[in-house]
Amino acid sequence: MADFLSSVVKAIEPLDNSAMAIARQRQDSLTKPHGSLGRLEELSIQIAGIRGKVTPELEHKAIITMAADHGVVAEGVSPYPQEVTRQMVYNFLAGGAAINVLAGHVGARVVIVDMGVIGGFEPLPGLICKMIDFGTRDMAKEAAMTQRQAMDALEYGIEVVEAEMSKGLDIIGTGDMGLGNTTASSAIFAAISGHPVEAVTGRGTGIDNEQLAHKIEVIKQALSVNKPDPRDPVDILAKVGGFEIGGLVGVILAGAAHRIPVVIDGFISGAAALIATGLSPQVKDYLIPAHVSAETGHGPMLDFIGLKPLLNLDMRLGEGTGAALGISLTEAAVKILGQMATFTEAGVSEVEPSQDEQGGA
Amino acid sequence: MADFLSSVVKAIEPLDNSAMAIARQRQDSLTKPHGSLGRLEELSIQIAGIRGKVTPELEHKAIITMAADHGVVAEGVSPYPQEVTRQMVYNFLAGGAAINVLAGHVGARVVIVDMGVIGGFEPLPGLICKMIDFGTRDMAKEAAMTQRQAMDALEYGIEVVEAEMSKGLDIIGTGDMGLGNTTASSAIFAAISGHPVEAVTGRGTGIDNEQLAHKIEVIKQALSVNKPDPRDPVDILAKVGGFEIGGLVGVILAGAAHRIPVVIDGFISGAAALIATGLSPQVKDYLIPAHVSAETGHGPMLDFIGLKPLLNLDMRLGEGTGAALGISLTEAAVKILGQMATFTEAGVSEVEPSQDEQGGA
Repeated sequence: MADFLSSVVKAIEPLDNSAMAIARQRQDSLTKPHGSLGRLEELSIQIAGIRGKVTPELEHKAIITMAADHGVVAEGVSPYPQEVTRQMVYNFLAGGAAINVLAGHVGARVVIVDMGVIGGFEPLPGLICKMIDFGTRDMAKEAAMTQRQAMDALEYGIEVVEAEMSKGLDIIGTGDMGLGNTTASSAIFAAISGHPVEAVTGRGTGIDNEQLAHKIEVIKQALSVNKPDPRDPVDILAKVGGFEIGGLVGVILAGAAHRIPVVIDGFISGAAALIATGLSPQVKDYLIPAHVSAETGHGPMLDFIGLKPLLNLDMRLGEGTGAALGISLTEAAVKILGQMATFTEAGVSEVEPSQDEQGGA
Repeated sequence: MADFLSSVVKAIEPLDNSAMAIARQRQDSLTKPHGSLGRLEELSIQIAGIRGKVTPELEHKAIITMAADHGVVAEGVSPYPQEVTRQMVYNFLAGGAAINVLAGHVGARVVIVDMGVIGGFEPLPGLICKMIDFGTRDMAKEAAMTQRQAMDALEYGIEVVEAEMSKGLDIIGTGDMGLGNTTASSAIFAAISGHPVEAVTGRGTGIDNEQLAHKIEVIKQALSVNKPDPRDPVDILAKVGGFEIGGLVGVILAGAAHRIPVVIDGFISGAAALIATGLSPQVKDYLIPAHVSAETGHGPMLDFIGLKPLLNLDMRLGEGTGAALGISLTEAAVKILGQMATFTEAGVSEVEPSQDEQGGA
């Protein structure tokens, strides 16, 4: 393992149990029946454990949206022309995309990173350049990237988080843009889980039955040509991954290392989380799965990692759109714990919870 | 039907189909794959139909939380002492309750209404007095209220909405506070649906198995003593309902009559929605079901009305807490439709969706 990688992995510590115990106790002292805010209560306790503080501020929120192109698009796996990746980056920078609207709604800044979009960009205000190459190679024919490029992607992701920390960073949302990246994500999930490709491959931006059958064949071919090692997450990333996926792995690792909660978006962010938890199982405690998307493999992927999504709104856009909504729920949870009155403060009569209650029913 | 009631019911019109058609067309022109924002897209189209405007402002948001006491608490259906209803109203007014925190988070004002809390209140800033009586009577022994009181509750709810409209009111969330009101809501749902009482009765604020069995017996007794007419929603409200539930029925009817979307909270708001849709089936189109709560009967209740909840976070607090989160999602949906760039505006290449896509998968 490269030095930078082993040092970030070593920096990832268990959650702060004592902050969590105090947070749990405080939840039970607030003016509501024990457990009656369900998952918001659990979430507030998790955030206390991550931040090492019972009622942390979540003032500085950033959604880090990473863009890159995929050589496998040459195989005809997406209905959109490949230049859409680049066009959408301009749309992000102009503020016209869904992620801009939803990030604005929840008070988060959007951090746009070019990890390797075909054509590249002139220097643009608001665009962070971490370009590795003009898109990956076609994984149906060869490895998507070199091992060195995979490591670069991880390192760049870590660098992005560390640079953003200087502006204030209390919670991270992950996001992606890249034509062909559901193909890469399905390949990653199949390689790690051993699930059949058919069970983890969906329609992405929207393909018909024939195109879906073709996409499945392309993924099978990529796995058979490259033979990624299921026990080596970086090998999988290099052979069937993508630059933006690698960048997001770095973002997730750095978030966990710096005790910053990471709200993960949909299928592509999930693939990054899968690789990150493969590198350090401890990472899982730092993740908040915003939603389960409509993409076929996403539900099984979250189950495989052991994460229970907050939302299920049939979304399947990526960009960090689900993460934005998840950030708002997380902030709501933290405010509940920080701002509600206790029974004593409010002069409200308290009772002990019954022992027969199950999961708040 | 009383004059005020038939006039509000008559004022409830179908959604504006032409606004909805334009909204749908606009959704499909925005820079994202068709349907990729799932339920947020549907929600934005529903709001366009309600407001009669493609991209309405949702600037003025109010959560109307109605409080009242229930005579049936004398039967021992709740673990909390009855004075908690009154104590919690003070907590709402002091800003210390969950609903204050969550309403603040989503930028909504909280409107607290005394519909009939035992002991009553001195005039207090921020408290709207629509007190019908110091709590209902014990429905296990007699009708919870007179038919006249039931009609008063509806009328007061309508008045509250109309008074709030003078301050600006673009979206309403419903909320409740009242010890014993899950008992009343289960009775209402059993009476209307014919479902067995066991299937629609849960633990409320948290009771043990023995208390739950007792609560079920009390509800059965209330239904057998009062014999509410399943085809007469006001009769059901009077015999086994509550003042705050009746008030919320009025709020829902007035919202629909004035083309204001109504985000309904949990089990108690659901019981009000059940009565309101009984009085006017058209009301359903104006409702946004914020969440399915952990209370046993709530899922089946939403199914019975034909509403699909946005959230499932194991919450079971009431007060309007789920509605607050639902308001934020609704606002997000409306912003998406109003603020995103179209393919043409952003210079992004567009493709037609495939015909094989099913529900955005």
